[in-house]
Amino acid sequence: MISTSTFHFELIHTSKKSRARVGRIHTPHGIIETPSFVAVGTNGALKAVDNTLIDEMGLDLMFCNTYHLMLQPGTEVIKNAGGIHKFIGRKKPIITDSGGFQVFSLAYGSVASELKSQGKKKIGSSVLKITEEGVRFRSYRDGSEILLTPESSVLAQKNIGADIIIPFDELPPYHIDPKVLYSSLLRTHRWEKRSLDEHLKNPNGQAMYAVVHGGVDDELRKFSANHLSKLSFDGFAIGGSMGKTKPEMVKMLTALMPHIPEDKPNHLLGIADLDSLSACIPLGIDTFDSSYPTKAARHGSLLTSMGTVKVTRGIFQNAHMPVDQSCPCHTCQNYTLAYLHHLFKAHEMTAYTLASIHNLQFMISFMKKMREEILEDRL
Amino acid sequence: MISTSTFHFELIHTSKKSRARVGRIHTPHGIIETPSFVAVGTNGALKAVDNTLIDEMGLDLMFCNTYHLMLQPGTEVIKNAGGIHKFIGRKKPIITDSGGFQVFSLAYGSVASELKSQGKKKIGSSVLKITEEGVRFRSYRDGSEILLTPESSVLAQKNIGADIIIPFDELPPYHIDPKVLYSSLLRTHRWEKRSLDEHLKNPNGQAMYAVVHGGVDDELRKFSANHLSKLSFDGFAIGGSMGKTKPEMVKMLTALMPHIPEDKPNHLLGIADLDSLSACIPLGIDTFDSSYPTKAARHGSLLTSMGTVKVTRGIFQNAHMPVDQSCPCHTCQNYTLAYLHHLFKAHEMTAYTLASIHNLQFMISFMKKMREEILEDRL
Repeated sequence: MISTSTFHFELIHTSKKSRARVGRIHTPHGIIETPSFVAVGTNGALKAVDNTLIDEMGLDLMFCNTYHLMLQPGTEVIKNAGGIHKFIGRKKPIITDSGGFQVFSLAYGSVASELKSQGKKKIGSSVLKITEEGVRFRSYRDGSEILLTPESSVLAQKNIGADIIIPFDELPPYHIDPKVLYSSLLRTHRWEKRSLDEHLKNPNGQAMYAVVHGGVDDELRKFSANHLSKLSFDGFAIGGSMGKTKPEMVKMLTALMPHIPEDKPNHLLGIADLDSLSACIPLGIDTFDSSYPTKAARHGSLLTSMGTVKVTRGIFQNAHMPVDQSCPCHTCQNYTLAYLHHLFKAHEMTAYTLASIHNLQFMISFMKKMREEILEDRL
Repeated sequence: MISTSTFHFELIHTSKKSRARVGRIHTPHGIIETPSFVAVGTNGALKAVDNTLIDEMGLDLMFCNTYHLMLQPGTEVIKNAGGIHKFIGRKKPIITDSGGFQVFSLAYGSVASELKSQGKKKIGSSVLKITEEGVRFRSYRDGSEILLTPESSVLAQKNIGADIIIPFDELPPYHIDPKVLYSSLLRTHRWEKRSLDEHLKNPNGQAMYAVVHGGVDDELRKFSANHLSKLSFDGFAIGGSMGKTKPEMVKMLTALMPHIPEDKPNHLLGIADLDSLSACIPLGIDTFDSSYPTKAARHGSLLTSMGTVKVTRGIFQNAHMPVDQSCPCHTCQNYTLAYLHHLFKAHEMTAYTLASIHNLQFMISFMKKMREEILEDRL
């Protein structure tokens, strides 16, 4: 009987056909069965779905954003509550990021808008200064100046108290001079080391994943993976620009993954659409976070075994049947496609809740099927 | 063992201290314990709370609006689904109104705005014509012309298939010439008779409550109650203007209630704030509908045994305790006031869900306490 109170990775099976693997990440708040979909609850709550429900549905890992939680409610409040699990009423594992992603999104714009801008986008005005020390920016809530450093990010994540935390890194844009990318990578490595040192002063049962950077440059990615593997991180996240297209991402990950240590868990940051999952699980990635399934749900796009169903289409007005006959979710067990169609048309908030529950269940079931396929060497 | 499949009222106890009474309304979808709070789910859904949850919480009766359901999804869709219970996934009793209230709100403005206007408000442009036949108005959804008559309202309510339905009535404003009020009342009586005749062609297990009118004129109210009592309605709703102030309403109801038959259930339309409940339950009213508890919840006002708590107040930032220690609701059992405060500040949709669940539970518990007090002759 392995204790679940200390963080460690248990590799159960690697497919004979690919690098795809089934494992268990043991954490102080229970086990994450991998490969696993990680839902995003930026402010400590999934949009429109309450936390006890996702516990019951079997969502193993939830992603919360340090940047947002720092600004609201403030990490001291979460510490006072006894940590994020108690604060938000979640019993299962939680991961937080460093805040870096959001701060650099303020600087360079969102990933999508930066890609679109062809690199012409200038640094946003809310980021005041990036130095070796860290990043100085303005709060979008009250305009106050905040300095985020490797140390302050880790201390914020200590207050929050998630099971898995992330070192402070720079998120360079896709359109970047190779020399600038290289010097950014070196600084990110220095920031990650400072983050790890700060973390190890008081590990407190938390695990810290390194963030592998290097954009779409295979050599830099390999260099980053090898460099970070030498430090005592508990796992590896893959961050930074993944490229402009899915094939570019898959090419980069195909080159990178053999350099990620196999005895530790790894995570792909911000990507979990179905195509990417199908392409990346065979590369050996363990966990994937994305707000895509819940965001799609709120726009009326339901994931089903028959493909995506746009629930607002007129043809569903009289579809008096579940969204997906074979789906065990709360929504499909209790409501019809016609009712969901109506709720969306009537702009009822429960539309977003019921659609999100369905899409989350779909992701959980999809990953379970993936694990079964790997165990049977079919993937 | 009394069957619950046929509509009837079972009077259990009348307080020795007042007209307050405890009873059971038996319906094809189970029992409504009275006095009872009736939650409003205009479009077949409470705002932000899913129907299975309110079934579990023990909300005995839900109010849906025929006017809204006629326009979206259309009552034929609900009929195709096998009726409103199947369509919305609710197992317990449902009541629908006639659509008249909304149509006449279009004409005279909302109750609040009409009261404010001192009677100077003109008929709204979306109501095209009021005749003996019925009311012709424009759909707010697509601008199409719709004729609502006693017969078409009842047929719409047959398609919907609620347990309790309401005859088509006119809702005259508070500011009205006494002669016009009298002729409106006579026409409402004719419309109610036509509604009842249409209903009795195919009762289909549904019960129809008369709507007693007469504004704040005690004589007209008495006249209306006596007139409608002679017809074979299954219960009595009190509609029309209740006055400008609570004392005016209580005075009117005090005069009216002795004229409402005691062997049938009665309902106060659109009023269920705590002060009104405390004042009206001793007058012998059985059921009360209002969107107030859910609307207040969405604005962060939580009903508790210690009074109303404005959850967004800064002092609750670190209130790491349930909203109400003694509350058995899902929200209080799983989340803290500090977390709710945070969810409101972060504009998370779950804030509205969790706050609404709490307020609904408060109303259900409040009514249960009222029933206990009546049974013990303390009210």
